[in-house]
Amino acid sequence: MRDPILLPLDLPELEADLSGGLVRRTVHPSGLRVLTERMPGARSASIGFWVGVGSRDEQSEREDAPGSLGSTHFLEHLLFKGTPSRDAYAIATSFDRIGAEHNALTAKEYTCYYAKVRDADIDGAVTVLADMVTNSTLSTTEFEIERGVILEELAMAADDLADVANERFFEAVLGEHPLGRPIGGNPETIRAAHRDDVNQHYRERYDPTTLVVTAAGAVDHDRLVEQVLAVLNLSPEERWHTDRVAAPARRAQLAAGATVVPAPGAPAADGAAGGSPVTEAAGRAFSAGAEPRVHLTERPSEQVNLMIGTEGLCASDDRRFAFGIMNSVLGGGMSSRLFQEIREKRGLAYTAYSFGASYSDAGVFGMYAGTAPEKAEEVARLSRLELQKLADGGITEEEHERALGQIAGSSALALEDSDTRMGRLARAELGSGELYDLDASLERFAAATAEEIREVAALFAERPLTTVAVGEVDRAGFRG
Amino acid sequence: MRDPILLPLDLPELEADLSGGLVRRTVHPSGLRVLTERMPGARSASIGFWVGVGSRDEQSEREDAPGSLGSTHFLEHLLFKGTPSRDAYAIATSFDRIGAEHNALTAKEYTCYYAKVRDADIDGAVTVLADMVTNSTLSTTEFEIERGVILEELAMAADDLADVANERFFEAVLGEHPLGRPIGGNPETIRAAHRDDVNQHYRERYDPTTLVVTAAGAVDHDRLVEQVLAVLNLSPEERWHTDRVAAPARRAQLAAGATVVPAPGAPAADGAAGGSPVTEAAGRAFSAGAEPRVHLTERPSEQVNLMIGTEGLCASDDRRFAFGIMNSVLGGGMSSRLFQEIREKRGLAYTAYSFGASYSDAGVFGMYAGTAPEKAEEVARLSRLELQKLADGGITEEEHERALGQIAGSSALALEDSDTRMGRLARAELGSGELYDLDASLERFAAATAEEIREVAALFAERPLTTVAVGEVDRAGFRG
Repeated sequence: MRDPILLPLDLPELEADLSGGLVRRTVHPSGLRVLTERMPGARSASIGFWVGVGSRDEQSEREDAPGSLGSTHFLEHLLFKGTPSRDAYAIATSFDRIGAEHNALTAKEYTCYYAKVRDADIDGAVTVLADMVTNSTLSTTEFEIERGVILEELAMAADDLADVANERFFEAVLGEHPLGRPIGGNPETIRAAHRDDVNQHYRERYDPTTLVVTAAGAVDHDRLVEQVLAVLNLSPEERWHTDRVAAPARRAQLAAGATVVPAPGAPAADGAAGGSPVTEAAGRAFSAGAEPRVHLTERPSEQVNLMIGTEGLCASDDRRFAFGIMNSVLGGGMSSRLFQEIREKRGLAYTAYSFGASYSDAGVFGMYAGTAPEKAEEVARLSRLELQKLADGGITEEEHERALGQIAGSSALALEDSDTRMGRLARAELGSGELYDLDASLERFAAATAEEIREVAALFAERPLTTVAVGEVDRAGFRG
Repeated sequence: MRDPILLPLDLPELEADLSGGLVRRTVHPSGLRVLTERMPGARSASIGFWVGVGSRDEQSEREDAPGSLGSTHFLEHLLFKGTPSRDAYAIATSFDRIGAEHNALTAKEYTCYYAKVRDADIDGAVTVLADMVTNSTLSTTEFEIERGVILEELAMAADDLADVANERFFEAVLGEHPLGRPIGGNPETIRAAHRDDVNQHYRERYDPTTLVVTAAGAVDHDRLVEQVLAVLNLSPEERWHTDRVAAPARRAQLAAGATVVPAPGAPAADGAAGGSPVTEAAGRAFSAGAEPRVHLTERPSEQVNLMIGTEGLCASDDRRFAFGIMNSVLGGGMSSRLFQEIREKRGLAYTAYSFGASYSDAGVFGMYAGTAPEKAEEVARLSRLELQKLADGGITEEEHERALGQIAGSSALALEDSDTRMGRLARAELGSGELYDLDASLERFAAATAEEIREVAALFAERPLTTVAVGEVDRAGFRG
């Protein structure tokens, strides 16, 4: 079996052929990492500035503390608002005038600023992205305007009941764990946010040790490294902003075998009422026989948005390949069991699928469907039943083969896009430190046995299931 | 200036170099058209079976008539439900086991069934798509199950207030015109739909004259033509399903200079209360001085979804290139006027943009923003003001240059995807019959003068503006 490419932090240069492209990696003495994948024939490139800081790294509850809830996402917005050499309008026009696809996103364990541009526009995009990430001024005026924008973003999300269900589901399954919190904070924490606290969060957390620059497509590695070092004012002997205390990256902790602990100030996991007893250590056994938990949110609606699931797998869990196949069979497409039983045979929903989300020290597994309130009880029953059937009887040979084909085909198609490859580099670097090329990862999926696949379903089926329903749950007396 | 490639219906074979690919087109004596664009180096392909029949072609109001509202979309669902040689599960597995990206969509003037697959899987995907489009059985059992699925799809859309605002906006601007109707029908028409009527709609409308097969990527034109003819059981001398009355394609009508009229049974445009006086003929002058029209829909929400606009341009309107630039400047990106004035300077919304939608004989122009109810009045005022300022003063040189750069860059990036090229072929074939390659279309954009751009803004600003607001409009006494 082919091994993944390892990305050790003390290896300054690395070069490897991956299916479809040449991968190169440079680790600067400051801790800054640059990874590129050159794709033959590409006339454009995707460039990402990734910072290994996400919503989980915020201090919670203490509203006046640096890094209060939502501050990572608030900061992401503010990095578009100006540096000493570019105001917000200059940043916006620099992307718009070249027709770039560009945006930023805040996740639970990282933040990313990216652009996809034509080959001739790469240098310009790198310059602006680097300036934004390292030199933003966070002006007080812009801070107050952006507070309004973020409150509108939260209001928009609050009107999307599938979004609401998703946030409630993470909170319900992961309980007090920092990964359970909504990424954007809530209107109260955003109204209470102070500019100086967000600025402190920026100064303390954005650092060469947490910054990973990745690019894929028509990209020249040496040129990119040179350019990033120049904009960041880094020489091989010099650290970027040496006055800052370097926050060790999550991956550095993982690589060193350290236990990942919640960010300072986060309450310890305690299994409080309504929260699930989640700890920060991976693989903890669940207390058997716990009662299923049901979280109902009454909202005027045509559909009930239903999520049922439990704790899933960590990103480094060896069972993730078996899970990929199990998830494909259970709810990964039109031929999957959930889609067939809920939609195709009974017409109970338009959308029905299963999913997994994995992080460094926790994960969730879930099943989603949107359905009329009077059908919610049956859809919930069918979802639980299909999970149990998979746990009891496993998958068929035909399903096994189809899932492998689906994963191979969809992965190959996804890797045609430079943004997928750009993201893969960053997630490997910030995550497990293992970079799988397509063939190596397909070998891992193929090596998972039918029994291992059944065992993953059984693992989830044996855990207490959490049910979240958002919508007119009262209309038909839905009780989970 | 480079001319577009013309696609006359009486030209059986055509071959042309387009920037990035070789385009070939075959018109079969039956009327069937096959267009391909081979992209050098591609390892996958996007394949679409397009039928020139959309929701506008349905007969309206008479619930028991063939083709009642929503039947085109209902039919699209049913084509996944089985043929004499493949049941619904076989269709689903045939796509899933190769990891295809596949789906279908119903629009106002066409329906499309598509798949993106690896090169080795092209033949298989073409076989299944062709079988679905030409041989579906529309079983009564599947019809009843799918009725439930579609009702859930409509319920899902009804919970999305931006979706609701969009449908209301088209109805309000286009009035009784068949293009003003919601694509999917409504719960009443779907509950009343009869299998035999949808079947008749299928038998009468799906025909070689309305079918256009397009593909882009690693595709072999001759092989595709041969395969499609074989599955459709067509020889050069033979018509497909000769017992059917061939419905003339919209484009054939346009090419012949015929006036496009609403589908039989649709009420004549009459400017009834609440509807705008839209006729089926393009370019009709508006009665000056008509009162602005406001349509409020009260729904519990955090945000008001606001759309303001008026009739826009037809797909064949020469002013569409000037409009593209005007739209980029007004609301086409982070540096656009609406985004700057509403979001960046005042923090009143997370999303603010302008848009156009063009059809063979009508179009709409609109501005969208989502905002808190108490800010809706100001956002509406600012949107109207920015349109008026553009109508009065035109655009700056810097904006002009930036818009051209944005269109050039974003078009080049979009055309890297085979699905964009596949769709471009079909829309040209089903629409104006003119296929612009990238350079030719950029020349048209560059040729639009600043005065022509201002005149398009003035055209819209002089028409009576329709305002649609969906959400808690009463909360702050919003009156438009």
